[in-house]
Amino acid sequence: MSDGFGIENLPFGVARLPDGRTVGASRLGDAVLDLDRLSAAGLLDVPEGVLAQPSLNAFLGLGRPVYGGVRRALARLVEDGGPAVGAASVPLGDVDLLPPVAVGDFVDFSASIHHATRAGRLLRPEGDPLPPQWRHLPVAYHGRAGSIVVSGAGVLRPRGLVPGDGGPAFVPSAALDLEAEVGFVVGAGARGPLPTTAFADHVAGLVLVNDWSARDIQAYESRPLGPFNGKSFATSVSPWLVTLDALAPYRRPGPVQDPAPAHHLAVAGPWAYDVRVEVTVASAAMTAAGTPGLSVGCSSLAELYWTGPQLLAHATANGAGVRPGDLFASGTVSGPSPGSLMCLLEATERGSRPLALPDGTGRRWLEDGDTVTVRGWAGGDGRPLVSLGEVSATILPAIETEG
Amino acid sequence: MSDGFGIENLPFGVARLPDGRTVGASRLGDAVLDLDRLSAAGLLDVPEGVLAQPSLNAFLGLGRPVYGGVRRALARLVEDGGPAVGAASVPLGDVDLLPPVAVGDFVDFSASIHHATRAGRLLRPEGDPLPPQWRHLPVAYHGRAGSIVVSGAGVLRPRGLVPGDGGPAFVPSAALDLEAEVGFVVGAGARGPLPTTAFADHVAGLVLVNDWSARDIQAYESRPLGPFNGKSFATSVSPWLVTLDALAPYRRPGPVQDPAPAHHLAVAGPWAYDVRVEVTVASAAMTAAGTPGLSVGCSSLAELYWTGPQLLAHATANGAGVRPGDLFASGTVSGPSPGSLMCLLEATERGSRPLALPDGTGRRWLEDGDTVTVRGWAGGDGRPLVSLGEVSATILPAIETEG
Repeated sequence: MSDGFGIENLPFGVARLPDGRTVGASRLGDAVLDLDRLSAAGLLDVPEGVLAQPSLNAFLGLGRPVYGGVRRALARLVEDGGPAVGAASVPLGDVDLLPPVAVGDFVDFSASIHHATRAGRLLRPEGDPLPPQWRHLPVAYHGRAGSIVVSGAGVLRPRGLVPGDGGPAFVPSAALDLEAEVGFVVGAGARGPLPTTAFADHVAGLVLVNDWSARDIQAYESRPLGPFNGKSFATSVSPWLVTLDALAPYRRPGPVQDPAPAHHLAVAGPWAYDVRVEVTVASAAMTAAGTPGLSVGCSSLAELYWTGPQLLAHATANGAGVRPGDLFASGTVSGPSPGSLMCLLEATERGSRPLALPDGTGRRWLEDGDTVTVRGWAGGDGRPLVSLGEVSATILPAIETEG
Repeated sequence: MSDGFGIENLPFGVARLPDGRTVGASRLGDAVLDLDRLSAAGLLDVPEGVLAQPSLNAFLGLGRPVYGGVRRALARLVEDGGPAVGAASVPLGDVDLLPPVAVGDFVDFSASIHHATRAGRLLRPEGDPLPPQWRHLPVAYHGRAGSIVVSGAGVLRPRGLVPGDGGPAFVPSAALDLEAEVGFVVGAGARGPLPTTAFADHVAGLVLVNDWSARDIQAYESRPLGPFNGKSFATSVSPWLVTLDALAPYRRPGPVQDPAPAHHLAVAGPWAYDVRVEVTVASAAMTAAGTPGLSVGCSSLAELYWTGPQLLAHATANGAGVRPGDLFASGTVSGPSPGSLMCLLEATERGSRPLALPDGTGRRWLEDGDTVTVRGWAGGDGRPLVSLGEVSATILPAIETEG
């Protein structure tokens, strides 16, 4: 799907080319643009070698004037129609796309009040679904950066300890879930605290995220320090970092926040992004037959209670810094409607109402062989379509262990 | 204090030398040994340049045969008494010690049943102090790798949201605490799961850790995803990685675990380390007067309910991998006795029983200007003393923010 990768987009990624080089890249339609080649030809204003690295960290760390300038220069080269762009183009199908950044710290927020309320009701039915601080600060945890993989990499079903009849048993998760999210990628690093007004100078752009969750492992382990093994086995990200600049036309006012957030979390201006996100599930049989995945839910990043600038300000409010390539994700982007449930926990009401797949099977949770695909885009409603591409992965059976 | 840095120890660190080079280093008494120089002279069997980097990650990633071999070669050079060691020696006072590794993922466990029980009673007095899973798996959370600093770096008092009379207020923490811990540093990386028997092949050694904790921020934010801003502002580590080989003589059987852990967490052999840890607090006035810090508590890593091999096996049981330089810490190493309480939460019973400092002041929590020092060592009881050195830091006032 080349739609949404026109001149309005020009995202950044990392590609292994047919000649063996690993380079910073962009995408135009079905072509990948070799930015290192354009840089070596003197057409992009970046230090030598910075686009010949296995991640975008050093490039993004140069800051918004540099990567913003590169994107504008690229757009001019495309518009000019000279031979340089063609010479730097490689067919998309001929490259391997790598994770765009080497993530230093990965934070996952819980920024959707719709997700938090439903998940709270399902997981902690005895109490108030939202904890008392929820409307005062964006709740978050640190995830495992080393488990981040790029779209296309298979995800092994994790084993873990879950309650059993004769005590806890170490078994493959029987409640494997997806979480469709959007992640913010840090460009220029900084010491904290960062005000909400620093967002556009320190966040380079967005990727799609699937924060895989083993609900049974997570439920057993999480008190009092939060999720660990139930989340840390894998997090999948999309390969194209779509810049804030490309998404600027799709900004709109965030939700009304009541009560008003504390001063350091207050935000002025339209800092919600109308980025649509859809997640589908296809069984192995559906994939083999070429049947498209069933849509589990479709939502928008603009449904989030907490906006990106607030997430960044909160994460750094205590003085913590950010480094180039850090990733902070929205949490499940569920909206208010029944069609906007972005994880199976919500969509099946914790497994009690299976989804009916077109192949005649039901899904309480993910099965081996299932392929989960999260897609994202802005526009397409009469405005230019800017695609975030997709993050897709197939569930592989738990590996056998000794004993 | 040069004691405990004899030929039995020979730890690894990273030093910035007076000539401006940053090198892999060891320590012998009050001298720092420039390992890059010894390597360049052909006296150490490592690839060129691997000891001329700003972290030990690449060196440790070569695996136990390599770094173990380097340590044995160093010991032979010292014993031989030739000129090479002297030529590579720099006075300790002339170098800056840097963090020994660039931590990829930082995990903090809660491996002491004494700490977990006391903290649970103090923080959640309404329920069972230990959650139901505690004796079945080592509880843990991921911390912020980017906030790790080396001994000597000042720690800014964090601001955060805490409950107030008129709703939550964003204020400097009024309950700043220390947590004296020991951290395990990963050498050779691997995909998970790793069995407990893989511990000595994938953990290079130990450092001391102070996992600073703002108890008021932590208490307000932690449900349901665990601590975030209350921990992520800073974690201090000691500069010298003391190898498992150096500590092998101090291994002893771990505690009796009841119930027996699941098969994948079972461990055979003496995998507890009798590494003593002491933490002291000195006020600014005491520091100015040269008064030694008050001992808050003294404990041993051997008091932990969960041993290092079990922590590694649990963290990777779900398939998560480890990378060179990853750090997983014990959690507060408190023991059973009143003299072995290794954080102020325990030692002051959540601030209700202030510690009396020699300068006449009391401490419910840390004050600005306080210096906290965690020291660690093995032996000294008739057996050779092997020091882990210290991790020390002074609390700096919260920085002013706009508004």
